[in-house]
Amino acid sequence: MKFNIAVLAGDGIGPEVMEQAQKVSEAVAQKFGHEITWKPALTGAAAIDAVGEPYPDSTHEVCLASDAVLFGAIGLPRFDNDPSAPVRPEQGLLKMRKKLGLFANLRPTFTFPSLLDKSPLKRERIEGTDLVFFRELTGGIYFGEKGRRDGGETAFDNCVYTRAEVQRLAKKGFELAMTRSKRLCCVDKANVLETSRLWRETVQAMEKDYPEVTVSYELVDAVAMRLVQWPNSYDVLITENLFGDILTDEASVISGSMGLMPSASMGADIALFEPIHGSYPQATGLNIANPMAMVLSAAMMFEISFNLHEEGKAIRDAVNKALAEGIVTEDLADGGKAYGTKEVGDWLAANI
Amino acid sequence: MKFNIAVLAGDGIGPEVMEQAQKVSEAVAQKFGHEITWKPALTGAAAIDAVGEPYPDSTHEVCLASDAVLFGAIGLPRFDNDPSAPVRPEQGLLKMRKKLGLFANLRPTFTFPSLLDKSPLKRERIEGTDLVFFRELTGGIYFGEKGRRDGGETAFDNCVYTRAEVQRLAKKGFELAMTRSKRLCCVDKANVLETSRLWRETVQAMEKDYPEVTVSYELVDAVAMRLVQWPNSYDVLITENLFGDILTDEASVISGSMGLMPSASMGADIALFEPIHGSYPQATGLNIANPMAMVLSAAMMFEISFNLHEEGKAIRDAVNKALAEGIVTEDLADGGKAYGTKEVGDWLAANI
Ligand SMILES: CC(C)[C@H](C(=O)O)[C@@H](O)C(=O)O
Ligand SMILES: CC(C)[C@H](C(=O)O)[C@@H](O)C(=O)O
Repeated sequence: MKFNIAVLAGDGIGPEVMEQAQKVSEAVAQKFGHEITWKPALTGAAAIDAVGEPYPDSTHEVCLASDAVLFGAIGLPRFDNDPSAPVRPEQGLLKMRKKLGLFANLRPTFTFPSLLDKSPLKRERIEGTDLVFFRELTGGIYFGEKGRRDGGETAFDNCVYTRAEVQRLAKKGFELAMTRSKRLCCVDKANVLETSRLWRETVQAMEKDYPEVTVSYELVDAVAMRLVQWPNSYDVLITENLFGDILTDEASVISGSMGLMPSASMGADIALFEPIHGSYPQATGLNIANPMAMVLSAAMMFEISFNLHEEGKAIRDAVNKALAEGIVTEDLADGGKAYGTKEVGDWLAANI
Repeated sequence: MKFNIAVLAGDGIGPEVMEQAQKVSEAVAQKFGHEITWKPALTGAAAIDAVGEPYPDSTHEVCLASDAVLFGAIGLPRFDNDPSAPVRPEQGLLKMRKKLGLFANLRPTFTFPSLLDKSPLKRERIEGTDLVFFRELTGGIYFGEKGRRDGGETAFDNCVYTRAEVQRLAKKGFELAMTRSKRLCCVDKANVLETSRLWRETVQAMEKDYPEVTVSYELVDAVAMRLVQWPNSYDVLITENLFGDILTDEASVISGSMGLMPSASMGADIALFEPIHGSYPQATGLNIANPMAMVLSAAMMFEISFNLHEEGKAIRDAVNKALAEGIVTEDLADGGKAYGTKEVGDWLAANI
């Protein structure tokens, strides 16, 4: 097959880890007989500096003309202290999600046997954890009307959902649950919010279309607790944008493998793949960042965007082998030998 | 001193644990020469059954005429499956908070040395944790306009905050920080929400009035992570209603002592004290529920509402002694002897 892949490397360590994901993808392409054309485009602070805009139209054009998007990380410390500055890297992220229609953010949290001891949780709490969140990504309070009144003394943010928005996200959740253990948890705050009641009644109405799936309904506060207590009791979870933001970040640290977690953001036409970690600016250019989450994001791309499961598995297998053999960056070296970002990428590419 | 204390025992195990808190408070009153008049009133499912309303006006009158409110727990399983039912116990809670003006919810999370092993977190993560949340309780998305349009196909919830609301909550946080380690963390989502930007700018403007307090500003998703990773790195945290709901529940389970955590909800005129656990309906009438969180809520009442610190300390000391000597209910017995709810209450009262 032939693919065009948009490469939005972004800021900080983004470009370094992206380079490894491209290298590993090239090895996959060579082994399985595919041809990749890489389409680099600006995003984040890099784009603000170049064209004054974190997600410029030119980048959007590149994404639209591609078969998938690989995304590195965005954000730099100089933007951190003023969350209300008019031009900020994250605004590019939100704009990109909306304009590309990436409504479903898929975030797995799983454990690697060799990394269990890195978890803040006790071993018996975390062992066997393998859960997936589907977070709604283009609606809710993120995109509702917001502003000030009373001369700036009152601020408001509107949270809005339509039944159709809930349905298309929930459908993803039901379908994923069917391929796994057929358990789905709908996370809401239906005892307080009208939007949550719409979520709940919509999902309830869909149950009949998936008679094999057992659906549970849990309140967001209860899930925030149970994720810490018994993360391995969950399988597929679906939730709205803001709850998903909070809970997926919480979930990401329980495994102890945060630096390894990939994610996918899916729309009707295109999907984007990115590590869940940030741009880690302190590490920029030092060749110490862990490229595995970015590389595993490329594995998800082969599977989800191109339906190429052997290709994805080849990448996963290489990562597992690297972990088992200690071919890791300093964050995972535990006093042992630490490899560089580039060296880990080379090793993974050579082991495809 | 003479006090009137409203007693809203509520549902499930509420009445049983309340009885112990009253018993222990009576022992304190006797020892220190106070006189308590108890004013029982209906709330929760009990009130719905009796008068069709979870927070009836008669109960509100009792609260207004009292010097403090002790609150047990509300909710019964028969209400769980329909979060949109017109009359629900939680609605009483929200109505009560609003009508009594209980805008500041204080929730400590601390560890008991003898219970450290009950935490899902590894010992080194949890040791020394002693943090306090001030959650805004009468504003935000809980109380903004909510409803449907487009024939029910679209749902909305409005999140609204005024500068004055933020100020009065933040003031509580600054003042508490002054009595502790002088560190305050303002939790928001200022990179997305206008209400959060109002929170942040308001707190920033207050910093000059508390020059000794070091304030940090963290995003809610980052806090959800760090609470699991390094809970002991926090001291006082302030946040809005919904974030507080999620994060305080998350924080409550990390300590392993959830069954022991008290809370206070403070207004301009009156404060309410309640355990953070729920009504635990399965345990109703079995004399197995742990009364310590309710008893420690009474300790907070003596300290916060009556400014009687020795009295509060007498209760805390008795609880610590009971824990050290193994006078505990089955949830903490760890295979050892389990005492009944009433027996633990008797022991605590006898050890004041
Ligand atoms: C940067 C921010 C706007 C973003 C979000 O809140 O969605 C981030 O936290 C994420 O989860 O991708
Ligand atoms: C029962 C519910 C309405 C309530 C809330 O969300 O405030 C509860 O979760 C709490 O934290 O007291």
